[in-house]
Amino acid sequence: MTQPIALRSYAQDRFLPAGEEAQLVSAIDGSTVALMPSEADPGAMLQHAREVGGPALRAMTFQQRGKMLRALADALTARKDELYALSAFTGATRSDSAFDIEGGIGTLFVYSSKAKGLPDARVMTDGARETISKGDFIGQHILAPLRGAAIHINAYNFPVWGMLEKLAPTLLAGMPAIVKPGTVGAYLTEAAFRIMIESGALPPGAVQLLLGSAGDLLDRLDGQDSVAFTGSAATANMLKARRNIIARTVRFSAEQDSLNAAILGPDASPEAPEFDLFIKEVVREMTQKAGQKCTAIRRVLVPAHLIDQVQGAVVARLGKATIGDPRSDTTRLGALAGIAQREDVMSNLATLRTEAELVTGGIIPQLGGELDKGAFFAATLLRCDRPAVAKAVHAVEAFGPVATLMPYADAQEAIVLANAGEGSLALSIFSNDAAAINDLVGGVSSFHGRIMIVDRDNAEFATGHGAALPHLQHGGPGRAGGGAELGGIIGMMPYLQRSAIQASDRILTAIGGM
Amino acid sequence: MTQPIALRSYAQDRFLPAGEEAQLVSAIDGSTVALMPSEADPGAMLQHAREVGGPALRAMTFQQRGKMLRALADALTARKDELYALSAFTGATRSDSAFDIEGGIGTLFVYSSKAKGLPDARVMTDGARETISKGDFIGQHILAPLRGAAIHINAYNFPVWGMLEKLAPTLLAGMPAIVKPGTVGAYLTEAAFRIMIESGALPPGAVQLLLGSAGDLLDRLDGQDSVAFTGSAATANMLKARRNIIARTVRFSAEQDSLNAAILGPDASPEAPEFDLFIKEVVREMTQKAGQKCTAIRRVLVPAHLIDQVQGAVVARLGKATIGDPRSDTTRLGALAGIAQREDVMSNLATLRTEAELVTGGIIPQLGGELDKGAFFAATLLRCDRPAVAKAVHAVEAFGPVATLMPYADAQEAIVLANAGEGSLALSIFSNDAAAINDLVGGVSSFHGRIMIVDRDNAEFATGHGAALPHLQHGGPGRAGGGAELGGIIGMMPYLQRSAIQASDRILTAIGGM
Repeated sequence: MTQPIALRSYAQDRFLPAGEEAQLVSAIDGSTVALMPSEADPGAMLQHAREVGGPALRAMTFQQRGKMLRALADALTARKDELYALSAFTGATRSDSAFDIEGGIGTLFVYSSKAKGLPDARVMTDGARETISKGDFIGQHILAPLRGAAIHINAYNFPVWGMLEKLAPTLLAGMPAIVKPGTVGAYLTEAAFRIMIESGALPPGAVQLLLGSAGDLLDRLDGQDSVAFTGSAATANMLKARRNIIARTVRFSAEQDSLNAAILGPDASPEAPEFDLFIKEVVREMTQKAGQKCTAIRRVLVPAHLIDQVQGAVVARLGKATIGDPRSDTTRLGALAGIAQREDVMSNLATLRTEAELVTGGIIPQLGGELDKGAFFAATLLRCDRPAVAKAVHAVEAFGPVATLMPYADAQEAIVLANAGEGSLALSIFSNDAAAINDLVGGVSSFHGRIMIVDRDNAEFATGHGAALPHLQHGGPGRAGGGAELGGIIGMMPYLQRSAIQASDRILTAIGGM
Repeated sequence: MTQPIALRSYAQDRFLPAGEEAQLVSAIDGSTVALMPSEADPGAMLQHAREVGGPALRAMTFQQRGKMLRALADALTARKDELYALSAFTGATRSDSAFDIEGGIGTLFVYSSKAKGLPDARVMTDGARETISKGDFIGQHILAPLRGAAIHINAYNFPVWGMLEKLAPTLLAGMPAIVKPGTVGAYLTEAAFRIMIESGALPPGAVQLLLGSAGDLLDRLDGQDSVAFTGSAATANMLKARRNIIARTVRFSAEQDSLNAAILGPDASPEAPEFDLFIKEVVREMTQKAGQKCTAIRRVLVPAHLIDQVQGAVVARLGKATIGDPRSDTTRLGALAGIAQREDVMSNLATLRTEAELVTGGIIPQLGGELDKGAFFAATLLRCDRPAVAKAVHAVEAFGPVATLMPYADAQEAIVLANAGEGSLALSIFSNDAAAINDLVGGVSSFHGRIMIVDRDNAEFATGHGAALPHLQHGGPGRAGGGAELGGIIGMMPYLQRSAIQASDRILTAIGGM
């Protein structure tokens, strides 16, 4: 970058003045990429969302909003090269950037497509009519958008997808949003946001961008607003417990820590196709986005008798994952988002090492030149031989290219270990034994928001352990925060209020067409 | 009562020893009805639910659990006279008791009937399969019971229904429950609970009854447990903010305060049938259960030009609602649940009177004899002529036979006033004008969990403003707590975990049949 980008918040339908509140630096070499503006006025933004954005969006039908999402997706697609160029500064390889950028745009496309199945109306019915009486007095649930604002507090790891995966269901539901991106890559979020504004596809007040502090925003919310948070459990817990959030019953959906596991089935052998598929997936999850995915595999559960062979195969494959400048075509492992993030990873790694041995990695690589000012970190495999009595390996998320290998004796122990994470976003099972899969799924499903089951026949079609798909729920119980994003209508529920209508047929029919 | 009933908690599949921790007195005359036992051991109960009750229930299919609910309903039906006899001591008339007892049993029946439409399996699919890939790799959401315990914290106003409306969806979902009843009428809950145990229909550990303090129970819960709370917003907010509830992402569903409104449509005239229907409903809601229903009409919204006529009609009709011994056939208005509850009502009434004039009531009636030791309170109508600038009338729930009459100028103001309660459980509209109804519903639906629309044609079939039906959601946003109970599957969701399965067709088919 020759000249840092002067970032601007977008409030009340205009970009606010730039400022020099803070510098955002490149993950590659520490050079300044962008300047953060001064604080915006969250109260005024909230009022604008409620008074302008909400009414404008609620005047549209679900189908009209779906077309709006399509227009946003088209606008982003047309200018995605601008996003790729910026994405590299976050430490992302071209492939990592695609996961963020194409993944985000794809989410808009899928939601716009789902909208075709929704009514061309402002409320939608939910479920069938219920017989509640002998005469013409019938029950029907309907869903209508909340009257307040959606507050999106995003993590730093997916500057584009993180914004769009929340905006798609929110806007389709008919709620205006205030987007607060993670700071470290906010320049990429701002660029994508700017493209959407410039597309002209959005009505006034539909979206606003809040860079920097949220001030007292959360203390101004009420029961018609909805917060969607992605980030650490520590921050989530602090926000959820805020007096106003509790007292006003503000909806709060959290996607927080997750010690996702991958299980190599008890039926596997080193010769089985599932063994190789498993190794590839583990390594991909460790290296993609430098492991900075909330869904990434952190715990690698394998039959005890195979652990040495799995370890050897993972180490061998990691050895081929070249680390370096993410702009290079040969790089497989880019940089972490920043030096502070790397320090977090190293600190958490130290905790994990109290229970697990280091197999490989754990170091800052010497890449030479300017890259030594970047936020690179070697792919790191740990091994914990007594996972049943360990705590940290099931609880501490080192948010980088770090995973822990652990053995299980039988399916029952695999279930106990998988669930020891106390709730995760994604779990995968690599097995060709339907009975074993059934046992495992039966034992783990209530702890994991998404479960991917891969075998030799479906592997070529599998979408990947870490990929949160717009069609399917993204969110898990317990440690993962209890939220439920994406998954079509499921992802819209934080922004819709269900109401049970009891009325005559003619009234219900009229309401259904509202 | 000649001899007080010695109540017993039920823990680990046996009734614990009785005690004399506290006396529960009759709402009619202050005589002692029952004795509360000493504290139970909540930690042991929780462990039992998790280790015995959960596995036993999860071994059953949804359909088997539905049959279990049916057996419970049959057992309660066979012995309901025992419950009616006790119910009178809570201050309930025969009709009030029916609302509680038959309402509770009816909820079991409806849920057992709904179960026939659920799979004869241990997990159920949720929604259609999702195409997420070009080959044999498909998405399907499933629902499975959480692995922990359901903690039911019930209010005192519905000793039977309050327990059963939570137990029906919980047990059908496959979760064990620990029931903590409201103290004042706990003898009625214990009697109904005992009938269920004696029916033999429940597997070990499926239900436990916790009388008295919950001790540190909430601090022992985790993300696989689920709390369902009914009571005041103040208590709910205290519990929701507890460190462990937040830190472990314990599911917490609250049904708390609600300033429910009834709207007489802008089209009404004193000659219209809807006018009379409205008056009858308002008076019924004020007097039924002595106004101790979380769904009762608290705010009576009428066209400004009709307010005097409405007031006259309500006062006239209230005049015919005889107050007195609930065991008498001629009594229309029984007692409040207790003296402490009456003191709460009087305190809240004093607050309301800072903004509203007293029209009628507001006094403790002199009924003579032993009844003067009871918890009677006169039906009380207030009138607030400037509701748009009032606060308390939209926020303070006097949990007794108390309602506030208020005028609105036009439909837009009716909407603003209805929503000024900041979220309610139930709203009703009495109107014969489909366009007016559409306007109102469009403006209010996101604030109210249930909306009943009554006109001259459907009134004979209408189920009543205050009746929470098992088929329809019970719960509302904001002040009402944000919960969603009942409503068939909706009411089971706090006890089920959704998981998105990605797998081949044959695996999905097998999982669906688990």
